[in-house]
Amino acid sequence: MPNWLVQRTYLTPDRIAVRFKEENYTFKQIHDKVMIFCQRLSAEGIKHRDIVAVLMRNSVEMMAAVHALNSIGAVALLLNHRLTQREIQWQVEDSGAKCVLVDEEFKELVCSSITYITLEPLHNSDKMTADIYIQREFPLDRVATIMYTSGTTGNPKAVQQTYGNHWWSAVGSALNLGLSEKDCWLAAVPLFHISGLSILYRSVIYGITVVLHTGFDEKRINLSIIKDKVTIISVVTAMLTKLLNELGPSYYPNYLRCVLLGGGPAPVSLLEKCKEKEIPVFQTYGMTETSSQIVTLSPEDSLKKLGSAGKPLFPCQIQIRKDGNMCAPNEPGEIVVKGPNVTRGYYKREDETAKSIRDGWFYTGDFGYIDEEGFLYVLDRRSDLIISGGENIYPAEIENILLSHPSVKEAGVIGIQNAKWGQVPCGFIVRNNFVQAEELLNFCEQHLAKYKIPRKIVFVKALPRNASNKLVRRKLKEMISEGE
Amino acid sequence: MPNWLVQRTYLTPDRIAVRFKEENYTFKQIHDKVMIFCQRLSAEGIKHRDIVAVLMRNSVEMMAAVHALNSIGAVALLLNHRLTQREIQWQVEDSGAKCVLVDEEFKELVCSSITYITLEPLHNSDKMTADIYIQREFPLDRVATIMYTSGTTGNPKAVQQTYGNHWWSAVGSALNLGLSEKDCWLAAVPLFHISGLSILYRSVIYGITVVLHTGFDEKRINLSIIKDKVTIISVVTAMLTKLLNELGPSYYPNYLRCVLLGGGPAPVSLLEKCKEKEIPVFQTYGMTETSSQIVTLSPEDSLKKLGSAGKPLFPCQIQIRKDGNMCAPNEPGEIVVKGPNVTRGYYKREDETAKSIRDGWFYTGDFGYIDEEGFLYVLDRRSDLIISGGENIYPAEIENILLSHPSVKEAGVIGIQNAKWGQVPCGFIVRNNFVQAEELLNFCEQHLAKYKIPRKIVFVKALPRNASNKLVRRKLKEMISEGE
Repeated sequence: MPNWLVQRTYLTPDRIAVRFKEENYTFKQIHDKVMIFCQRLSAEGIKHRDIVAVLMRNSVEMMAAVHALNSIGAVALLLNHRLTQREIQWQVEDSGAKCVLVDEEFKELVCSSITYITLEPLHNSDKMTADIYIQREFPLDRVATIMYTSGTTGNPKAVQQTYGNHWWSAVGSALNLGLSEKDCWLAAVPLFHISGLSILYRSVIYGITVVLHTGFDEKRINLSIIKDKVTIISVVTAMLTKLLNELGPSYYPNYLRCVLLGGGPAPVSLLEKCKEKEIPVFQTYGMTETSSQIVTLSPEDSLKKLGSAGKPLFPCQIQIRKDGNMCAPNEPGEIVVKGPNVTRGYYKREDETAKSIRDGWFYTGDFGYIDEEGFLYVLDRRSDLIISGGENIYPAEIENILLSHPSVKEAGVIGIQNAKWGQVPCGFIVRNNFVQAEELLNFCEQHLAKYKIPRKIVFVKALPRNASNKLVRRKLKEMISEGE
Repeated sequence: MPNWLVQRTYLTPDRIAVRFKEENYTFKQIHDKVMIFCQRLSAEGIKHRDIVAVLMRNSVEMMAAVHALNSIGAVALLLNHRLTQREIQWQVEDSGAKCVLVDEEFKELVCSSITYITLEPLHNSDKMTADIYIQREFPLDRVATIMYTSGTTGNPKAVQQTYGNHWWSAVGSALNLGLSEKDCWLAAVPLFHISGLSILYRSVIYGITVVLHTGFDEKRINLSIIKDKVTIISVVTAMLTKLLNELGPSYYPNYLRCVLLGGGPAPVSLLEKCKEKEIPVFQTYGMTETSSQIVTLSPEDSLKKLGSAGKPLFPCQIQIRKDGNMCAPNEPGEIVVKGPNVTRGYYKREDETAKSIRDGWFYTGDFGYIDEEGFLYVLDRRSDLIISGGENIYPAEIENILLSHPSVKEAGVIGIQNAKWGQVPCGFIVRNNFVQAEELLNFCEQHLAKYKIPRKIVFVKALPRNASNKLVRRKLKEMISEGE
């Protein structure tokens, strides 16, 4: 497999690779930028097989940094710039990264004991090296990138993503969503998450344009969709909700052919609104360990199979297991997945790897079921499961109900300790307009079994979300314990 | 990698898999047909890893036969039904095929010493087996199909095509041509050739419809393009010429987005006519050993790069070599190729394999050059390959037959221009004693497929030979042009 950026540049040098802040960059221009980057990095002593952390905001520079590290055969460790200095230090040290490539603005996040290279001095340097090694071919079984992901308990684990994982992820997605040279994929999700990084790889593999945004701003994104002729956009629920609100009574142009909706089950009300507005939502289920999507629901099935995450990508397989056995249709259990896009394991965590990957199947830790037609329903991510008096309660289910109340803008549910039941649900609400807890609880009673009704409602101004706008229920737990 | 047909049926059971003689078959219907086929084949004693020859005309039955053999893990040997009984016998015996699956109409082509199974009795049989093995996963490195191809000298060699070869061929093609679930690929090329077989595999991998024709009839094909909303069609030069003539002053509908033109360099006049008619011709270069296309030229480049075969598919690489060294741009030499769609070698022909594959590169035997922008120009196929109406004809094979006639002392065969077929064979004979052309042609008819029989016999006093007494076919061509 030839070096992707080099091959892409050979095949279609003049196509637009990325559009960023009103400027276009062809594959040739990105390639040339990357080759200089490789020179500079080599001059700084970075070599084949080194691990190099990247602490940057979405930008052409950041894309070039990842391509450059791939090209010299180094492993890119993608760091989340919303982490604390301590969390970053932990990841850098745990991975044994040689240094951190860092945006000027994030310099403070790197503690003094860690070697870092800021971009501007790097590019202004005239250090060159005569002896530069460029990977002409990408070995599919070699690790290309590393991303830390928090487990249900304990410290984050480093997910290893090989060139093959990224390749198969891109190919699996294309076989499902289709592909046109006119495609243009908007990335407002961070490149340090797999949702964003996978767009970077798809761009070179497919030969399509990435419309890159530094962050999420609904007004700018809606403008960009029209102005930049975006055909595909990756979003999470909260982003899509904001986009729709901002859109108002207008419609999206019909070249927007795919709104790829990840980050957990979407509320039914949102899906119905999208249907009304003829927005082609593809719900998807994936994680860092599957190098992006592994299961996707096409729009034609999205109403028939409301709440489903869909069917696996062509090269992938899914099963539901319980106590080691396959579950019958509609019987809930742990979601296990298999496919060439699935990680080979956690870096330097053999125990965790052995726990998660058995007989070639990856145990996601998530719960769900598969119906008789083979559609996956994700009930909840395991870490959030609330167990109350022996009954399993899935927060998403309660959140969906709360969200369907007209006065509720956002909702998050967690389990809180309870002497009698072990855990009971607690709801966090961002209001659209004034409503009392009592009314919401009454509302819940109409829709939910008694044991699922929140014992407590907390009104807040905003819900804690991560960089990809995903609800972080763990932080809600912290809010509760601080409050007590 | 899950079994392709099974996975495709799981993902999109109700999409149309094939349209044949005005009838549609969904993936579910094909799947069910194939599963019964598997039962019958198993009951006939066909097992995992057996080689089974297929001697059939394009049909839904033939597609099902290939899928069924794949599903039970047998290797399908695709036989050209235009071959003589003797040629077929040779391929079956050389490959060690266990039996031949044969259409009623081709029964006579199978000699009595070979076991065969005709389709109708098979399907009417009530033999069942309780113990049927279905490959749930396709191991990419295992051989799926075998096709014989003649070399420059001697007997035909069996090209092994693995599941991986077919997979990567389909993926490489999709990354180049794009992919839409509305795609509909017309196959009038034979399924026993890689040009047709690759469409069968693309259909299940992409989830698109094959519009299958038993053979080529320009009137029917032109009708079918419109009626069946064909988006892609595979043709060779002779077919395209006929289609255009039949089309007359009309135009194709604009959903016909790709005319994939293989089988040798196309005449400039044809390309210009296509340009005039806004027909999106993608010229392509490929062979049995590369499991279909490996280099393709997109329409936007086709006038700028007239006569070029284009650039490699994304996962593939090409080079020009001469005496083991890489040639400079524009310098002609042997075309060598590399990629995951390239065969691992010839079955039971280790010498031939070692000669053709060195350091992971396949030496095609074809001559050409690559220009400064990386576009491939094929100058000549395997020096003396004759391409006649899309069929490959190897002079050595015809010469061997001619030489076995007692009155023939020496024989040389070349291709000569023909308006209808592109090229046809022409034989040059040095006689031992008096014999008429007619007798030699009758003799050829007994041993050779019809399309291989020389259209012209020229008696000469001596054949042009080089210092090592090797026939110089190039000089025969000069003799023809001087004679005209």
